[in-house]
Amino acid sequence: MDSSTQSESPEEEVRSFFDSAPHLKNSDLITQRLKDFVDKNSHASENGKPRRIVCVTSGGTTVPLEQRCVRYIDNFSSGHRGAASTEYFVRAGYAVIFLYRRGSCQPYCTYLPEDSFLDFFELSEDSTIQVRQSHSAVVKKSIRDYHAAVDHGFLLELPFTTIFEYLQILQMVATSISHFGSHGMFYLAAAVSDFYVPWNDMAEHKIQSASGPLDMRLTQVPKMLSVLRKEWAPSAFCVSFKLETDPDILLKKADAALNKYQMHVVVANLLATYKQEVVAVTKSQRTTIRKHSQEAHVEEQIIELLVEKHADYLEQP
Amino acid sequence: MDSSTQSESPEEEVRSFFDSAPHLKNSDLITQRLKDFVDKNSHASENGKPRRIVCVTSGGTTVPLEQRCVRYIDNFSSGHRGAASTEYFVRAGYAVIFLYRRGSCQPYCTYLPEDSFLDFFELSEDSTIQVRQSHSAVVKKSIRDYHAAVDHGFLLELPFTTIFEYLQILQMVATSISHFGSHGMFYLAAAVSDFYVPWNDMAEHKIQSASGPLDMRLTQVPKMLSVLRKEWAPSAFCVSFKLETDPDILLKKADAALNKYQMHVVVANLLATYKQEVVAVTKSQRTTIRKHSQEAHVEEQIIELLVEKHADYLEQP
Repeated sequence: MDSSTQSESPEEEVRSFFDSAPHLKNSDLITQRLKDFVDKNSHASENGKPRRIVCVTSGGTTVPLEQRCVRYIDNFSSGHRGAASTEYFVRAGYAVIFLYRRGSCQPYCTYLPEDSFLDFFELSEDSTIQVRQSHSAVVKKSIRDYHAAVDHGFLLELPFTTIFEYLQILQMVATSISHFGSHGMFYLAAAVSDFYVPWNDMAEHKIQSASGPLDMRLTQVPKMLSVLRKEWAPSAFCVSFKLETDPDILLKKADAALNKYQMHVVVANLLATYKQEVVAVTKSQRTTIRKHSQEAHVEEQIIELLVEKHADYLEQP
Repeated sequence: MDSSTQSESPEEEVRSFFDSAPHLKNSDLITQRLKDFVDKNSHASENGKPRRIVCVTSGGTTVPLEQRCVRYIDNFSSGHRGAASTEYFVRAGYAVIFLYRRGSCQPYCTYLPEDSFLDFFELSEDSTIQVRQSHSAVVKKSIRDYHAAVDHGFLLELPFTTIFEYLQILQMVATSISHFGSHGMFYLAAAVSDFYVPWNDMAEHKIQSASGPLDMRLTQVPKMLSVLRKEWAPSAFCVSFKLETDPDILLKKADAALNKYQMHVVVANLLATYKQEVVAVTKSQRTTIRKHSQEAHVEEQIIELLVEKHADYLEQP
C-alpha cells in the first residue's frame, strides 16, 4: 500500500481491496454451487465420522495492467501441485473445493503432456479412435477416478483468473467452509500475487508503447491470510505454502508466516526442487518430505502427513 | 529504451537486445530441425510451382521480472488465431513453421475445451475408452489432418516462452526462410511484449514483498520488424497484426505500422471483436473480413486473401 494507507489494519486493507475490485461475474451461480456442495457434504460421514472438507487453491493469479486486459502480471505455477493434491485428498475421504486458475493443471490430468493432446490417439485401420496402448491404462484410471469423484459429489471445481476473482471467491468458499468448524481445512497452494494495480488506478485501454520506457507502481496485495484465520473461518485447519528461490531465507520466511498468520502448517519449498522435496513447518517441528521414487508424487506424502495433523487437531479440546 | 540509448538505430537496439539476452537452450537442436525442414521443402513443389513457406507466430511472449523466474508479465493471447491459421496454410499447400507459446492453442486442437480433457471420454461397459459420440467426428478429422501434416513434413512446431526465446528463434527462422526469397511469408500473429526488463537489470531472486509498493521501469523492446524486413529476410512477404482495444486509433496505428516497417499487409483487429472481424490493410486498400457464419473461422477467409496477395506479390517483376 502507498504510505498514506500504510497504517491501515489488515482488515481495513482487505475491505478497501474488495470495495475497489471489479464486480465478480456469476457470483450467484458460484454461491449456489457452493451451497449445494456444502449441504450435501455437511451431512455426510466417512467411517462413522463427519466428512471433512478442504479448499485446495491452485495455479497463479493474474494482475491486469489494463482494465480491458491485454497485458497482465502472472505468477509461475503449473497448478500441478494443487491438482495432484486434490486427488489424494479425495482418496482420503475429503470433500474438495478445487479453486483453480483457468487453464491450469486439472485433477486426474497431471500426467498429460504439456502440448499436443493428439499424440495420445491413433486411428485404427477401421478408423476408430484409440488411445495409444502406452497411455491406455493411466487414461482409463483417470477417467474412472475423475467421474467417481464428481458423480459422488467429492469434487467441486471453481475457476479464477485474476487476483480479484481469486480473493472474492476464496472469501465465499471460506464462509461456506466455516460451517464445518474444525473439520474444514485450507490448503493454499495457489501462487498469489503480492503486488497489484488497484482497479481505479488502471489504464482503461492498452498501454501505448510509443513513448519511451514504462514506469509502473504496484501496490501490495493485502495479506488476506490473517483475515481468513480471524474472520472468515476461524476454526478451520490452515496450511499455506512458501515458495522461494533462495535457500538461505526459505525456512526463516516459513517460520515468519507461521507466526504472523497463525497458520497450523507452512509447507516450504524451493523453485528448483519443489517437485522432489518440501519441508512441513509447524510450531513444534520441521518435517522434511522427499519423494521416495521417480514415479511417486511428493503430494501423496504431503497429504498423508496433513491428514494426520488435521486428525490430531480435531482431537484437541 | 531509456534516454541514454534513445538515439540508437533499430539495428543497434536489436544487437544490444541479443547481446544482453540469456543463452538460448537447445539452439543446436532448433538449428538442425530448421535445416531439415527447409531442405525438405525448398526442393518440393505444389502444382508444378515451388512450394511456399510461411512462419506463423502464435501466442503471447512473457517478460520475466526475476532471473529465476517466479513472476512475469504476459500478453493476452490464447494462440487460437495462429493455430487455426496454420491449418489453413497447410491446406493451401504451404510448409508452415509454427512458432508458438508453450502451452498455447495447437493446430488441429482449436475446438478443444479450455479445461478438462476427460469430459471428452467415457468408458464403455467392457471398460474400453471411447471418445464421446458428440466429439468423435471432429476428433477423428483432427487426428487424421494432424498426422498427415506432420508425416508429410508440412508442419514444424517450435515452442517459446519468453520474449528472449521468441526473438532469438524468430531470427533463426527468418534466416532459414530467406533462402525461399519471395516464396517465403511471415504471418506474425504472436502477441509480442512491447516492454521488458533487460536481463542484467533483473533481480536474481524472487522480489520480496515486505517493503511497501514495487516500482518497476520497463524498457521498450526494440522494434524487430524493421530488422526482419531489412536484414533477416528482405524478399519475404510480411504480414503483421495490430491489436487494440480502442477503435478510434486502430486503423491509424495499422497504417503507421504498414509504413514504418514496410509490411505488405497489416491485419487490424479489436480485442472485443477479433474472432468475428478483422481489416486487412495494404498500401492501396482496406479489406474488411467478417466471418460468414457462427461455425466458420474468420482465419479461413484471412488466409484465402493472404494466399492471393502473396501470389500477386510473386507475379511482380
